[in-house]
Amino acid sequence: MTTPKRDTYTPETLLAVAVRVFNERGYDGTSMEYLSRAAGISKSSIYHHVAGKEELLRRAVSRALDGLFGILDEPGATQGRAVAQVEYVTRRTVEVLMDELPYVTLLLRVRGNTKTERWALERRREFDQRVSELLKAAVAEGDLRADVDIRMATRLIFGMVNSLVEWYRPQPGGSPEREQLADTVVQLAFEGMRASR
Amino acid sequence: MTTPKRDTYTPETLLAVAVRVFNERGYDGTSMEYLSRAAGISKSSIYHHVAGKEELLRRAVSRALDGLFGILDEPGATQGRAVAQVEYVTRRTVEVLMDELPYVTLLLRVRGNTKTERWALERRREFDQRVSELLKAAVAEGDLRADVDIRMATRLIFGMVNSLVEWYRPQPGGSPEREQLADTVVQLAFEGMRASR
Repeated sequence: MTTPKRDTYTPETLLAVAVRVFNERGYDGTSMEYLSRAAGISKSSIYHHVAGKEELLRRAVSRALDGLFGILDEPGATQGRAVAQVEYVTRRTVEVLMDELPYVTLLLRVRGNTKTERWALERRREFDQRVSELLKAAVAEGDLRADVDIRMATRLIFGMVNSLVEWYRPQPGGSPEREQLADTVVQLAFEGMRASR
Repeated sequence: MTTPKRDTYTPETLLAVAVRVFNERGYDGTSMEYLSRAAGISKSSIYHHVAGKEELLRRAVSRALDGLFGILDEPGATQGRAVAQVEYVTRRTVEVLMDELPYVTLLLRVRGNTKTERWALERRREFDQRVSELLKAAVAEGDLRADVDIRMATRLIFGMVNSLVEWYRPQPGGSPEREQLADTVVQLAFEGMRASR
């Protein structure tokens, strides 16, 4: 007995295919027709799982956003000095990006043409705002320099973190780079490249 | 007497339109037909200026690359301690990015599907390599920390610099942010956010 291919699909595997295709072709450039061919299942089978393309996008960016916002509730992000919290959040953001690479990549490419995209952009801004507040608190506690514009610094730190999606590719069986990368991002952003004197 | 619109085009203004359209739609997604409509001139008028789409791409990314490589020949990039040179190059890279924003944006989006794109990627790697060598020299001179992987640091610093294309928009009449941004990038990358003790 042959199991029809479509029966092997779960909402999760369908989502993984959709995210790959959205990242390759762009969300706007992907039709349900194309998605059905890429997944090797009929459009009606896709509609059995989701209401449409926008629901796939919402589920995908939700996965990235849940990972990111989850960080803010972890003990490392809520206890101790603000500078330790913000360093912790920076490190964990790098880790979530590496662990959920295709989902975070899609989130970072969202442009704002649909209701779901505008919602995702709004959530990203909320996350940046939360980190900005931690940075401000760390400046107020005297641990971070007061001569840096916090809005600009937040954008630049996230610019550095988010640039990882352009070149970081996990190795099969675990990447030795993983921890080193998170360390290096935190070192650069908070300590800088200069040797201490 | 009415001057035909196409006569107002110079190779430079045509290039500016092409770069804008390539950035909006992607190089692959832009046909000469579309370009001719966007520029408001006939295809044959475009062919009067350039051999084709790839020549426009080559001219556009050359402008960005000439700006970047030009930095490496400036006195600030060739004299003094290596750490001062690499800080200078970082600052000037931010400035060239801001001054040549559409051209650098296009350069950063090049994917490698054509000969010109592969050449542009190769030149970008060469530039990164030159900066990597300066960083290594500054480590050897004891001014930069030796415990950071230089290849990774180079990627992260350029990741931060290049992320500016996502949100930096010059203000008409000059941007007060311009100098502050270049300062903040250099401060973050080399001094870090931590208050000195």
